Formats: sequence, structure tokens, C-alpha cells
Amino acid sequence: MDQVDFLNGKTRLFGIVGDPIEQVRSPEMITWEMQQRGMNAVLVPLHVRDCDFDEVMPQLLRVHNLDGLVFTIPFKAKALSFAQALGPQARQVGAINALARHPQGHWIGEIFDGLGCVEAFRQRGLALRDKRVQLIGLGGAGAAIAAAVAAEHPALLQLFDLNDERSEQVAKRVRSISPATQVVVAAPNVQDVDVLMNASPVGMLSDARLPLDVTDLPASMVVFDAIVKPEQTPLLQLAEACGCTVVRGREMMRGQIARMVDYFNRQA
Amino acid sequence: MDQVDFLNGKTRLFGIVGDPIEQVRSPEMITWEMQQRGMNAVLVPLHVRDCDFDEVMPQLLRVHNLDGLVFTIPFKAKALSFAQALGPQARQVGAINALARHPQGHWIGEIFDGLGCVEAFRQRGLALRDKRVQLIGLGGAGAAIAAAVAAEHPALLQLFDLNDERSEQVAKRVRSISPATQVVVAAPNVQDVDVLMNASPVGMLSDARLPLDVTDLPASMVVFDAIVKPEQTPLLQLAEACGCTVVRGREMMRGQIARMVDYFNRQA
Repeated sequence: MDQVDFLNGKTRLFGIVGDPIEQVRSPEMITWEMQQRGMNAVLVPLHVRDCDFDEVMPQLLRVHNLDGLVFTIPFKAKALSFAQALGPQARQVGAINALARHPQGHWIGEIFDGLGCVEAFRQRGLALRDKRVQLIGLGGAGAAIAAAVAAEHPALLQLFDLNDERSEQVAKRVRSISPATQVVVAAPNVQDVDVLMNASPVGMLSDARLPLDVTDLPASMVVFDAIVKPEQTPLLQLAEACGCTVVRGREMMRGQIARMVDYFNRQA
Repeated sequence: MDQVDFLNGKTRLFGIVGDPIEQVRSPEMITWEMQQRGMNAVLVPLHVRDCDFDEVMPQLLRVHNLDGLVFTIPFKAKALSFAQALGPQARQVGAINALARHPQGHWIGEIFDGLGCVEAFRQRGLALRDKRVQLIGLGGAGAAIAAAVAAEHPALLQLFDLNDERSEQVAKRVRSISPATQVVVAAPNVQDVDVLMNASPVGMLSDARLPLDVTDLPASMVVFDAIVKPEQTPLLQLAEACGCTVVRGREMMRGQIARMVDYFNRQA
């Protein structure tokens, strides 16, 4: 009888929870990654309205073949309360973007934004250890990137955010993760820096601005932009024109998916 | 980037709710039917434990891109209370096996067991109108088959179930659906009958019994068995040996899926 081959009664369910939901890319990308690895699993979009979240979530977690959830806007902060235990990154950052059902039945949370960035560098054979890193933007993704980069033990991690309090908070966290790393909070600077990372929204969509005031970058520099759309941000355009090595938001996304599926698969 | 093509952020969700869930066939079959028709939709298994059903269901129905649910054991009776309106078959039978989200937001319920049986006959070009039909077994599926067959206005509908009260109840319902049909409650009989239908569990899996006491069937008879496993039941084996036309449980299942997807698609 005619039937699809990617779904059956034994399929384990995963979901991405957001409001709105139509723009998410996880269903096609994470499902692909899971099925490539031989998991009988799909990740479906779950449109839970913000006003329904607190009541729907506890019941959704009781669906017995649901093994994991990814959270997107506006639920990244709220999701934390549904984790009964946190992974190392989530403990440091104080936020999660994924929940996995532990084999013992409880839900554990982790955040993969930073791990995805580090994974992208690893995939490209670009070391962060002992490097001098400038990170711009310390919002949700930026703070997670700071924690994950800190765990790689760079020589210097220079931090900038428009919000000073946030910068100091992230600096303190980085110092506790990697005491040997020199941590500086200062205006963005590309002198004596090996790796420039943008995790601010400057350059997103049709924003033609650069996230820092430069006209030139040293060719030896590795330049990363967390922005996914457009693929070629103004910063990456300048970096390529200057002969720099560039690492794109899409590579971080791919890295994040790989690490997330590792996490989901390990619990299964 | 590598991705699957059967799922994305705009995919409308459908589910089959049951406990257990691993044995269900709807995910692969209904998803195939929906995607064949160009719907961006999947039907996933939702394992809701019997003890969790009453609390999980109302919240599950608030997932905003969930457009429909199919119910299997043990939820066919319980599901009725979540329908805010009923289709014609469900009103007659007093049970549902599918809920669809109406464009206005409320949930409507219908039962497709009987419609699937009638659809299987239609697909094969076998009329039920003005025929003399013997139906054995008036449980959930049998009662639904009686109602759907009644709506085709057979000349005679002869009913048998081990439970007399149930037989009388179904007989009364059939009379109200098709006043011109002669309705008889009696022991199964193949004299002066054109169509023999089994909706009892006799003959299921390794049960080698026949649902009625015969050694021979007239070659002119159409014999239907609602049982899906095995495909060749003892009754159908005898029918084929006697030269009868046979209609299988799988054909009913396929008919049911077609009508169910019509229903889901009409609401979308």
C-alpha cells in the first residue's frame, strides 16, 4: 500500500516551539540530520501562542513519544523553567534553547548557540585556543557564544555591548569559565586581534551598517558573523575584500544542529 | 543546505492519538495521502497515556498549527467530548474517530469506519443500494458500518451481534436512517443475501474460526471482512474458494483514509 517512508508509529517526535512559527528552518534541517543518522525521528513545527505557553507546555511534555523540543522567539527565556536539570552551557548562560527527555523521564536543558559557533570553527580547522578574540554583541546568542568561546581558552576575549551592565556580567562569567583568559570590556577594536566575531544584529536583513567603525581589516584575521540572513553581511563583505578568512552564520547554524542532534540522540 | 522536503515551518500538523501507539499505520498512510494531494501536512504518532488523556487533550488542541487528530484505542469513546459539533455519521453513531479544526476555530468530529467501508465498495463499483446485506458484529466499527450502509439504502439489512441489546439499538438507528430498508435482527444467514459483511473480531490474527456457521457460500455473493490482519481471513479464504467477490479490510482502510483526508482538507 502507498505510504511514506519517513514516518510511522514508532517515530520519535521532536518539535520547535515558537510564536510565530512559519519562518523556522529547524523542521527541514534537524529532521534531515536526524534521519541521516538513522534515527526514526522527525522535528515538527509547534505553533504555541505566547498567551497559551504556560498552560500548554506542561501537558505537551506528557506526550509520551515526544523526546525533545527546540525553543525559538519568544520562548527562550521562559523555557528554562521546564528543565529539571541543565547542561554545562545552560548553567553558565542561564538560558536554554533545547529540552531533551532524559532516559529516566525528566527533562534536561541546554543552549546550543555558542556550541554551534565553536563547532563551525572546529569544522573549518580554525583554532580559538590561545587566540585573541573580539566579540561584539552580548544578547542571547552573544552571551552563549562568549561562554562557549571561553571554554576554548582563548588568550584574550574582548567584549563589547551597548549595554554596559550586560558586558560586565558576561565578562565575570568568562573569567570564571577560563581564569587564564584575559578579559577586557571595551569599544570594538581590531588591533592585536586574531578573530573578530559579530553577534549583534547590526548588518541583518537590509541593514547596510558595519557593527564597528573600520574601513579595513588585516588579511590574517578570521571574521565570523552570526547573522544568517543575508548570508553575505556588510561585515563579511568587507572581510572578504580585505582577504580575511570568513565564517558564516549558516556554518554556526549547521554546527548548532549537529551538536543539538548529538544531544537528542544521546538521550534516546 | 541539506534538508528534507516533506516538512518545514509552514507544515500543518495532524496526529493520531493512542495508547499504545507503535502499531498504528496512519502516520505513513495518511501522510502519504495528504502529500499526494499537495497538502503541506504530516500526521504524526502522539502517544498519550490513558491516565494523561483528560489533561493533555485540551492543551494539545491549543497547538495552533494542529489541524486534526485521529483517535485509536482506547480513546474512541472519550474523544467525543472534545468535539464542539458532529458530522452526520458521528451524530448517528454517537462516537468519533477524527477531530478537525473548523476554519472558525472550533473542533468538529466525525467517524469514518463506516464511510471507509462504503467507499471501498464504491471504488470497486459494487452497489449496496437495493441489495440484501448481512452484517455480523455491531461493536464500534460494526455500528458505524451499519449506519453508513443504511445511508446507501439497501433493500434488507440483517444484523447480528452476540449482544442483543446492541443489535436492537443498531436496528432502531438503521430504521431511522433508511425507513425503506427492511431491518432484521437474527442469527447470521446467507440465504437470500447478496452481501455478507463481517465486522466482528472472529478470524483476526491467528483465529482460524469463521464468524458464521457455513461450509459453502453462493458464488454470486460479495463477501467483505473488516479485519486487516491477516489480509486473508478464514472467511475470505472460504469466499474465494467458492468463487465469491471479496472486499478486504485493507480496502476499507484505504477508503477510510481517503474520506478522512477529504474531511481534513475541506476544513483547511
